[in-house]
Amino acid sequence: MTTDNAPVPPAAGRLSINQETVRQLSVPDLVRVCAALGIGGVGLWRGPVRELGVRRAAETVRAAGLTVSSLCRGGFLTAVDPDERAAALADNRAAVEEAATLGTGTLVLVSGGLPAGAKDLTAARERVADALAELAPYAARHGVRLAVEALHPMYASDRCVVSTLGQALDLAERFPADQVGVVVDTYHLWWDDRVPDLIARAGAERRIAAFQLADWITPLPEGVLLGRGQLGDGCVDLRAFREMVDAAGYTGPIEVEVFNPALWAGDGKRVVAGTAERYRRLVC
Amino acid sequence: MTTDNAPVPPAAGRLSINQETVRQLSVPDLVRVCAALGIGGVGLWRGPVRELGVRRAAETVRAAGLTVSSLCRGGFLTAVDPDERAAALADNRAAVEEAATLGTGTLVLVSGGLPAGAKDLTAARERVADALAELAPYAARHGVRLAVEALHPMYASDRCVVSTLGQALDLAERFPADQVGVVVDTYHLWWDDRVPDLIARAGAERRIAAFQLADWITPLPEGVLLGRGQLGDGCVDLRAFREMVDAAGYTGPIEVEVFNPALWAGDGKRVVAGTAERYRRLVC
Repeated sequence: MTTDNAPVPPAAGRLSINQETVRQLSVPDLVRVCAALGIGGVGLWRGPVRELGVRRAAETVRAAGLTVSSLCRGGFLTAVDPDERAAALADNRAAVEEAATLGTGTLVLVSGGLPAGAKDLTAARERVADALAELAPYAARHGVRLAVEALHPMYASDRCVVSTLGQALDLAERFPADQVGVVVDTYHLWWDDRVPDLIARAGAERRIAAFQLADWITPLPEGVLLGRGQLGDGCVDLRAFREMVDAAGYTGPIEVEVFNPALWAGDGKRVVAGTAERYRRLVC
Repeated sequence: MTTDNAPVPPAAGRLSINQETVRQLSVPDLVRVCAALGIGGVGLWRGPVRELGVRRAAETVRAAGLTVSSLCRGGFLTAVDPDERAAALADNRAAVEEAATLGTGTLVLVSGGLPAGAKDLTAARERVADALAELAPYAARHGVRLAVEALHPMYASDRCVVSTLGQALDLAERFPADQVGVVVDTYHLWWDDRVPDLIARAGAERRIAAFQLADWITPLPEGVLLGRGQLGDGCVDLRAFREMVDAAGYTGPIEVEVFNPALWAGDGKRVVAGTAERYRRLVC
């Protein structure tokens, strides 16, 4: 049995902890804890980064010898209303600039859901494509790649009209591979029998921009947003995913992103150490 | 504006009300209400049917000039344990017999989730196929077709490892088309961009055994089981689905199956009449 403070082997260098997994830790505390455990990266969210100041957050991570694996998140690009659409594009350009300041090449995009009263998913997905056409060159000039994330189909109406890795790849392939990639997130994709083929396709097309881990547990809570499982608590074959992504040629960070209030209630350092231990045991 | 007691036009003859939409009505009351409104069928569940007695339920429906569009449900065929598996098969054979007594040719199957501790969806789906191989000839001898229902991917772990119409068709095609079909349920399938092609495939392969309607609304409730929307309250293009199913050659009943406690709290007759009015306005 390992303890929470057991030293983490070198493999943890590829591990990144997404801040929402341990929301109780500030950016500096998260960075300090990860550095002490030999964890190579952190995934950051715009809110806490802006609270601290983007430059200061960047310096904090850099000074500790860590990297920012991704910034969450841009997106919400499905509005029909011209003013809403312009505001969303402006906000995404700001997110691109923040990502560049943080030194991460990856801005995760959650595409957005259906506008009120709308029923046309295809049209909404086309609006995402139109927005990518405006944003991708801007991001590229800042050294940032847009990472389209497919969210589980249970979020299709209110959060993300991109529901499968196949849809994400179909969107991405309209753009240069170094400008638009995709996120492979086990929580959103685990149920799909086409995922092995789609991960292979994503690798062949050089589209894997990020790889995120969470486990699937039930019952889902009301609103289905904060019911992700800590690694190993659910039914996802995490190692099989890691092997598929590796076989597809992905060599980047492996980010743990678990939204679960039970983890937020614990001691942040213990949660991170426990996550690293599970990563080593269940993923590596 | 129509009232709850407005006469329903002949198109309602194709309409069927699934009992779980108006759980507050007994089988005889549901049949009486539907007959008075010119609704052609009812979808029944095994529990209430057994409570009344299968033969008596069959007589009640027949005497009113209605048909049973489907019986819900068999399935739960993913157990590894031999005793559990034998019990599931025996229960499904009983469900086949009940369907035959009720005079419906359609037994809806919810395949079952992952056994505790299991992570292999592919193996679980193969166990469903193995069970179908045992059950399909038995059902055929009783004049009953097994209707494999794809449930929304949010149920993949605990309720149904068959998550897409494509998976349901891949299972069904191993068997004769008159023995194993699929259910097209708008609630489970609305998010999938492959559905137009898959409905066309299902029609070409003569696999559409049932067509069920419910709308998609959010936020989802805890457990995500009882959050379906009444027709028109959500974001599903119900008419587009009906047109696709029609174009695929399906001419059978159109069953409304909404699980929502708000509907159960209302007067059952008013709920059925309102459903018929929405069906006429939003689906026909």
